[in-house]
Amino acid sequence: MRVLILGGDGYLGWPTALRFSARGHEVTVVDNFVRRRWVDGVGSDSLTPIGGLAERIDAWREVSGNEIRCFVGSVEDGEFLDGVVAETQPEVVIHYGQQASAPYSMASREKAVETQHGNVIGNLNLLFAIRDHVPECHLVKLGTMGEYGQPEIDIEEGYIEIEHKGRRDTLPFPKLPASLYHCSKVHDSTNIHFACRTWGLRATDLNQGVVYGIETDETADDERLITRFDYDEIFGTVLNRFCVQAVIGHPLTVYGTGGQTRGFLNIRDTLQCVELAALNPAEAGEFRVFNQFTEQFSVLELAQLVKHAGEHLGYSVEIQHYDNPRVEKEEHYYNAIHTKLLDLGLEPTLLGEELVESMIHAIERHKDRAIETAIDPHTRWNPGEPVQL
Amino acid sequence: MRVLILGGDGYLGWPTALRFSARGHEVTVVDNFVRRRWVDGVGSDSLTPIGGLAERIDAWREVSGNEIRCFVGSVEDGEFLDGVVAETQPEVVIHYGQQASAPYSMASREKAVETQHGNVIGNLNLLFAIRDHVPECHLVKLGTMGEYGQPEIDIEEGYIEIEHKGRRDTLPFPKLPASLYHCSKVHDSTNIHFACRTWGLRATDLNQGVVYGIETDETADDERLITRFDYDEIFGTVLNRFCVQAVIGHPLTVYGTGGQTRGFLNIRDTLQCVELAALNPAEAGEFRVFNQFTEQFSVLELAQLVKHAGEHLGYSVEIQHYDNPRVEKEEHYYNAIHTKLLDLGLEPTLLGEELVESMIHAIERHKDRAIETAIDPHTRWNPGEPVQL
Repeated sequence: MRVLILGGDGYLGWPTALRFSARGHEVTVVDNFVRRRWVDGVGSDSLTPIGGLAERIDAWREVSGNEIRCFVGSVEDGEFLDGVVAETQPEVVIHYGQQASAPYSMASREKAVETQHGNVIGNLNLLFAIRDHVPECHLVKLGTMGEYGQPEIDIEEGYIEIEHKGRRDTLPFPKLPASLYHCSKVHDSTNIHFACRTWGLRATDLNQGVVYGIETDETADDERLITRFDYDEIFGTVLNRFCVQAVIGHPLTVYGTGGQTRGFLNIRDTLQCVELAALNPAEAGEFRVFNQFTEQFSVLELAQLVKHAGEHLGYSVEIQHYDNPRVEKEEHYYNAIHTKLLDLGLEPTLLGEELVESMIHAIERHKDRAIETAIDPHTRWNPGEPVQL
Repeated sequence: MRVLILGGDGYLGWPTALRFSARGHEVTVVDNFVRRRWVDGVGSDSLTPIGGLAERIDAWREVSGNEIRCFVGSVEDGEFLDGVVAETQPEVVIHYGQQASAPYSMASREKAVETQHGNVIGNLNLLFAIRDHVPECHLVKLGTMGEYGQPEIDIEEGYIEIEHKGRRDTLPFPKLPASLYHCSKVHDSTNIHFACRTWGLRATDLNQGVVYGIETDETADDERLITRFDYDEIFGTVLNRFCVQAVIGHPLTVYGTGGQTRGFLNIRDTLQCVELAALNPAEAGEFRVFNQFTEQFSVLELAQLVKHAGEHLGYSVEIQHYDNPRVEKEEHYYNAIHTKLLDLGLEPTLLGEELVESMIHAIERHKDRAIETAIDPHTRWNPGEPVQL
């Protein structure tokens, strides 16, 4: 299969490229390395010492004998993206090429605009490129569970059947996005759904939970193939952050009570899910939505798990409750359906103390690279008075 | 009241500025005249011979003795908009400053990107400017009924109570926008709702139906105060188009069967609604949605009404069914609730033959300016094969 991966230099994009390449697919990656610049700009760096994309592609060729093709450029540049799609004629496009940090999007007007412009216009350019050059191509788009927010009802996978005043329809599930980044993902979903209805494109929106983990089968093959790993307040996801904090002796940064409940999944399962989606494409005209996570946890449960695992390994781990920099419910109903990927064959990698211990061991090898000043939460959702929810 | 009107040079923005000024409010308008350039760019022009904004403001001063303040610039320029908001300290911002044509947004990738960038980023800039300078200010945002599309259930005003698996919540009404322009308005609604939830802003989203009409009380005062009037396939709304077509002897351009049903309102009622919203602001943190139209009609009903009125005035009027350039249902359920503005005191101007005749009379004065080549539909929603709905 001809696979085009946008954002192929990233935390998930790079391991995804290796996975598809390892399976014998013809892989092309696109990146403009802006994620590296963003992380640098907030005073942080990947914990893992990743090489340049060209070096990593060379290492992969050496290890596997497989070629990954690479284009350097931005999805915001419509003509560039058009050219890449026309030249590579992908059968599936996997779109990770977006600004994916909620705090980054909330840090300033400029960063909010950068996030929404980059994400929405990049994705819109892609929809036109697919329509004009490869209308049968399957778009696999990374969405997020954060698009739904915390409604008082169960969260379904993309759609909900509504009975209203004696009539009935199945409509897009209402969204209450949790940041301007999450808003941008809702915008993307709206645009992709429109493109499927109007142009007959086929797309799968993977509303992904919070990803954790540091290794996949392919990145573990060779030190040079490792993927980036962020742990700062802006780009680090919560469990990854906690594990680094445990190793370097920083208190675990729980925001508020820690009662916030979300769906989580292992990076290995991200690859499984994306592969399952790609191998089982949506129909022409279909906008398919999968909720992509394996387990629900509260933030405090994760902190306790990391504390326990860390202490088991001899670390002294403290949990500290910080004033919540976000505007969000800390105690709330949360039940999100996530059966569609299981139906396609997903075999979840479940989270437990052993898995956290293995993450801690992987982190230990690079702990001297950790920049402790980048850890505490400084980016507030609301710079004014606290808002009552 | 200090009133800031974005898009104050436009079809609705200009009469709105006059209305608030006539009522003694302190009015500032912002525009960058891009609508004039867009219309020129598609080979058309306002049927009415409007003067420059400065000339019109001068004429209004002469007629009314009232001053309208004006800033020339783009809402996409965050620093410019920030400066205007900081300087004028508005109590209400009325945001018309957007690309408002569905066909324009569907004409090419470039125009789609221009539409979504301008609308989404301009509105996002505005949210930050309000948050940072006038957090108590009431945002009155023009949305569109086209955000909802044609669901099989009744369309409520912004929200719907959903009972699901024994639980219940009131959530944003699901949207099925009808073009990439309409998508941009959904994006705006999502962003504004987020800003209200997160920053405690107060906003009213006026999901407006299709506007028709050529005059308001104030624009009728003096020839120099007339507002623009578009009738081309891109920027003309359907009833305005039909009236011009009747006068110049062009067949009425019904797309497909004409069974498409929508909500409509007179331009005079737009002004009433905006004024009612401004005088009755949303609460802090509230994102209020009004469906702003007065009557539902099918396109064919409107064509028949114009044919009848035109023939009564001695015109020979033919109705012609064109291949539908849009991807839309032509026969569908449609029932949209619109009681909230009535509850605030809206007194609808109802559409009838007499009103159409008065529009035809107003159009007759400028009929020599009509550019007939701009009328037939050329902008297709889907340049490829027809999509089965």
